[in-house]
Amino acid sequence: MCTSVIYTAGDYYFGRNLDLEVNLGQEVVITPRNKTLEFREMPNLEHHYAIIGMSIVRDDYPLYFDGVNEKGVGMAGLNFDGPAHYFPVQEGKDNIASFELVPYILAAASSVAEAKKLLSNANIANINFSDKLQAAPLHWIIADKTGASVTVESTAKGLNVYDNPVGVLTNNPEFPRQLLNLSNYRSVAPANPANVFAPNVDLPVYSRGLGTHFLPGGMDSESRFVKATFTKMHAPVGNSEVENITNYFHILQSVEQQKGLDEVAPNTFEYTIYSDGSNLKKGIFYYKTYENSQINAVDMHKEDLEASELITYPVQNKQIINQQN
Amino acid sequence: MCTSVIYTAGDYYFGRNLDLEVNLGQEVVITPRNKTLEFREMPNLEHHYAIIGMSIVRDDYPLYFDGVNEKGVGMAGLNFDGPAHYFPVQEGKDNIASFELVPYILAAASSVAEAKKLLSNANIANINFSDKLQAAPLHWIIADKTGASVTVESTAKGLNVYDNPVGVLTNNPEFPRQLLNLSNYRSVAPANPANVFAPNVDLPVYSRGLGTHFLPGGMDSESRFVKATFTKMHAPVGNSEVENITNYFHILQSVEQQKGLDEVAPNTFEYTIYSDGSNLKKGIFYYKTYENSQINAVDMHKEDLEASELITYPVQNKQIINQQN
Amino acid sequence: MCTSVIYTAGDYYFGRNLDLEVNLGQEVVITPRNKTLEFREMPNLEHHYAIIGMSIVRDDYPLYFDGVNEKGVGMAGLNFDGPAHYFPVQEGKDNIASFELVPYILAAASSVAEAKKLLSNANIANINFSDKLQAAPLHWIIADKTGASVTVESTAKGLNVYDNPVGVLTNNPEFPRQLLNLSNYRSVAPANPANVFAPNVDLPVYSRGLGTHFLPGGMDSESRFVKATFTKMHAPVGNSEVENITNYFHILQSVEQQKGLDEVAPNTFEYTIYSDGSNLKKGIFYYKTYENSQINAVDMHKEDLEASELITYPVQNKQIINQQN
Amino acid sequence: MCTSVIYTAGDYYFGRNLDLEVNLGQEVVITPRNKTLEFREMPNLEHHYAIIGMSIVRDDYPLYFDGVNEKGVGMAGLNFDGPAHYFPVQEGKDNIASFELVPYILAAASSVAEAKKLLSNANIANINFSDKLQAAPLHWIIADKTGASVTVESTAKGLNVYDNPVGVLTNNPEFPRQLLNLSNYRSVAPANPANVFAPNVDLPVYSRGLGTHFLPGGMDSESRFVKATFTKMHAPVGNSEVENITNYFHILQSVEQQKGLDEVAPNTFEYTIYSDGSNLKKGIFYYKTYENSQINAVDMHKEDLEASELITYPVQNKQIINQQN
Repeated sequence: MCTSVIYTAGDYYFGRNLDLEVNLGQEVVITPRNKTLEFREMPNLEHHYAIIGMSIVRDDYPLYFDGVNEKGVGMAGLNFDGPAHYFPVQEGKDNIASFELVPYILAAASSVAEAKKLLSNANIANINFSDKLQAAPLHWIIADKTGASVTVESTAKGLNVYDNPVGVLTNNPEFPRQLLNLSNYRSVAPANPANVFAPNVDLPVYSRGLGTHFLPGGMDSESRFVKATFTKMHAPVGNSEVENITNYFHILQSVEQQKGLDEVAPNTFEYTIYSDGSNLKKGIFYYKTYENSQINAVDMHKEDLEASELITYPVQNKQIINQQN
Repeated sequence: MCTSVIYTAGDYYFGRNLDLEVNLGQEVVITPRNKTLEFREMPNLEHHYAIIGMSIVRDDYPLYFDGVNEKGVGMAGLNFDGPAHYFPVQEGKDNIASFELVPYILAAASSVAEAKKLLSNANIANINFSDKLQAAPLHWIIADKTGASVTVESTAKGLNVYDNPVGVLTNNPEFPRQLLNLSNYRSVAPANPANVFAPNVDLPVYSRGLGTHFLPGGMDSESRFVKATFTKMHAPVGNSEVENITNYFHILQSVEQQKGLDEVAPNTFEYTIYSDGSNLKKGIFYYKTYENSQINAVDMHKEDLEASELITYPVQNKQIINQQN
Repeated sequence: MCTSVIYTAGDYYFGRNLDLEVNLGQEVVITPRNKTLEFREMPNLEHHYAIIGMSIVRDDYPLYFDGVNEKGVGMAGLNFDGPAHYFPVQEGKDNIASFELVPYILAAASSVAEAKKLLSNANIANINFSDKLQAAPLHWIIADKTGASVTVESTAKGLNVYDNPVGVLTNNPEFPRQLLNLSNYRSVAPANPANVFAPNVDLPVYSRGLGTHFLPGGMDSESRFVKATFTKMHAPVGNSEVENITNYFHILQSVEQQKGLDEVAPNTFEYTIYSDGSNLKKGIFYYKTYENSQINAVDMHKEDLEASELITYPVQNKQIINQQN
Repeated sequence: MCTSVIYTAGDYYFGRNLDLEVNLGQEVVITPRNKTLEFREMPNLEHHYAIIGMSIVRDDYPLYFDGVNEKGVGMAGLNFDGPAHYFPVQEGKDNIASFELVPYILAAASSVAEAKKLLSNANIANINFSDKLQAAPLHWIIADKTGASVTVESTAKGLNVYDNPVGVLTNNPEFPRQLLNLSNYRSVAPANPANVFAPNVDLPVYSRGLGTHFLPGGMDSESRFVKATFTKMHAPVGNSEVENITNYFHILQSVEQQKGLDEVAPNTFEYTIYSDGSNLKKGIFYYKTYENSQINAVDMHKEDLEASELITYPVQNKQIINQQN
């Protein structure tokens, strides 16, 4: 379904794979500081932090899949079908619709700590954007430019904000279980393992990479959570922005869903429609798509962030092959 | 170490990932028809099929890692450390050094069937290119534009040419074992599996992609063989050359070795230095590198294939980011 | 650590493996109806259902590891180190020490439904049996002769009584997670699987039993939960008490911890000290030990169940080999 | 299908699980020294070493599944369906039918080294015992009281006698592959593993036994080969014959096939019909059956080994429960 990762390499890079069977028409959308953000049950925000990210726009409203703000806070919503539970509007609570949560947080939080405060009295309200556009079952990851990150899950038991020690999120099951499952992989490592299976017998290291033999490669959310965490944890730190963003996309690629591998309905396949990542400090938004392997970039600071209307860039989805002759 | 795949999509696409800890200085090299190909123990070939592929050049000799010829035959050499065994020059045999094998076959074979004939009396001779450049332990995959493919392995038991029903090759262990191991994965599928574990108990499909839960994700050659075969077998067929070559690189990406995950010596990591793929019919050679995610192309038919000197193109290794603003 | 299973075969058989690194001196203990059962914070029970099970006795108190009562209710306590949390004595609650829970339930419940009622206002109190004998971190399984079963877990979040649809319990993690993990094994089956991995390639069924290739065999609690559930779910129904109890012990044997495989401290190994199982209807308690593979039996109905003192039988731990010549 | 193990514990214990869907009517059979052993293509042996083992008897001929001789050599035949290939009788070779091989070796070899000599000119001939009793596709393990063992496989490529460094045999695939597969499990150990997956993150050891999390538990021959080898390699050494033989049966139990888990035809299930083990030095043959968990013993040295007729003991298949009250 989806995988989101924060990668630490001097600067911090945050983004996600969007895995789905249909392209919903997303664009790169900048919400400048003076674009009024309306909320169903909360006061409108007329002035706020500028936001850039991947989003669809309906009725002039940015329905962000993921984004980052000018303060270096990033946030992504990921499918959480099953445990996700939204509640009726509740008196005395900060009632936020699930589709409002990304702009709500990114508009006002300059750190994960501030995001946690914004969520401390929150109720994720079961409001649809419209009859046509029903609320999707989601959970969220929030990260900032100090490398901190949290997972936000609204389930039948209420709203949980979990510290996220690995900086990775995929999908169902609930986050504590995903985390606990990593313990099963304690022995998996980049180096070839010592022979503790039968120390008195010669068991040849017949291949490089035997230390990762038990790393999962499935499309399911548990497998992607394990693999993305491992890849991220061992990713090297580059010497430049280009090297880092390159490494970042390779991390996401380790859990890419290739076309044909995840059949979600007869002859209908989910795949990694796009991968994106932003430098949280610099406000540059990078992305690739399944169809276009070249990296594209939109720099929020090249726009007039004091504007009051959404700024959009179409997704470059055409494969441009560099013909050398 | 490496993964080679032939992908069927109307046309046939053949190429490989090169996984190594050092960049050996490879280039895109075209050997035109009248470049004399010298062999240590076999007659020189003054006229032959033109070849394009990834190669280093030493003493004006193309040491191809992989390549394709104008007749639509492709061939790649992959690490086979352990079982690989080359023999002393043997009277009455066609003695070919391991580093000569790719040009030897591609120069003269217009199909896999012809390649098999060329190998029917072959002896892979234990000759080094030079004192400095020792022969690497390799095995090979040969494929053609009908989709046929074979695996060539020279071990202590002699030379084996195996039909390759999956069109995939990685590394050690020997090919028949890699093939047999696939049987362990018979139940792995893109679709969510029926509950045959405990049919009377409700075991919810908590995630998409549970049908691939047992797909391996390791860097080792067994894991890559299984995953690449599965990905290839379920890859869709595109409607255009661009769509097919895009799909092809996604297949190779499913077994990409990210930096940091395969420690081959203390603090030294193998990774996927480049991925390449050629349309066997059209003679267009495409590649990407770890550092440069854009696809590059060199078309052999845009060159003078009647020439008598090697034609080389440098590998484009610089990440060109498409700045949208 | 431990595995408990209820097996359905006409009658119902309930019991467990006790996996530990030390033998605590357990015996087969019958608590007859008129043996006064004292509780620290609850009224004493002078008359109650008779109980048989494996227990240590301290200060004339039966500290049951597991047992069944004359009404066909069985209960076992299993290690739950980590999540287990007991609470201070709480006014208005039924405060029961963890070591009292098995006799408390078996003394008064004639069904799982009644056990649930007894637990509806319960608080598992953090009381030690004595300074020397500290409360162990446990969770419990309760089953009855209709085949119903529940899991009882007291964690920091409070007391949970979960319906147990598989009739199996091992150890940490919490029960809902153990249950969810079974979904990963939906495709595992006794029959050889169809080839859905690569339908167009011949992947020979080189071995019988390929349908269970992904069944785990580890000593850890997740592995044992999966394997015991699978074994139980596919166990045949016998035609006699002897055949059923034989089948029952084979189910437990599937998750036996052999000596040497589970090192819990340097050179100290946990293993399956005993396996037991009772016919819930007949009140016959059967057991084997690691040292003695013969099945032993104690029939509660052969005792005077109106008695007022504990009746104990020593565990037969000596291997009696049947010498045929 | 089957698993054979040699266990080192001061003395050496050798035997096997017989896994099958039908009981063939085996008995414990002693072939004394002067019982004439006839061979189809080799000279009869009128005097030879005495043998004890599990066997069916047809036309007064002992068709041993497995056995040991008075010199401390043990041998077992295990299913090898697929690779097994027997050859036409060949001039100049020692032509031995597959069903003759166990008596042929045990009659004359006082060590594994001598068995290898006996096999040095052997041809496993494709002769059936009778029209009704066709030759089964088998391979063999031979072990002796020094702990040495070899695997004997007759395939289309000829007869191979492999040194067996682990002293374990199951079924298909060929032995070198089974051995190589163990390398994938180098990191599996009885102790809880260090966290090398993500050293900077706290991944709690939530369960004992995490070091064996990746140990397989399937019924297939690869899974059993891995698990039996691991169990054997870490089995402790006992202080007495009883303790050792007890440990030995626990090793075999680790790969027991429970009824219901291995469906070989619709509603037909293979299971572990019997387990046996002999002290190679003492000539005592021990066994258990699926139906009878008590250990039975037959001591060859309590018989007149100079006799000339087969001596048989029926298999004790009735569960004798020790009633304690």
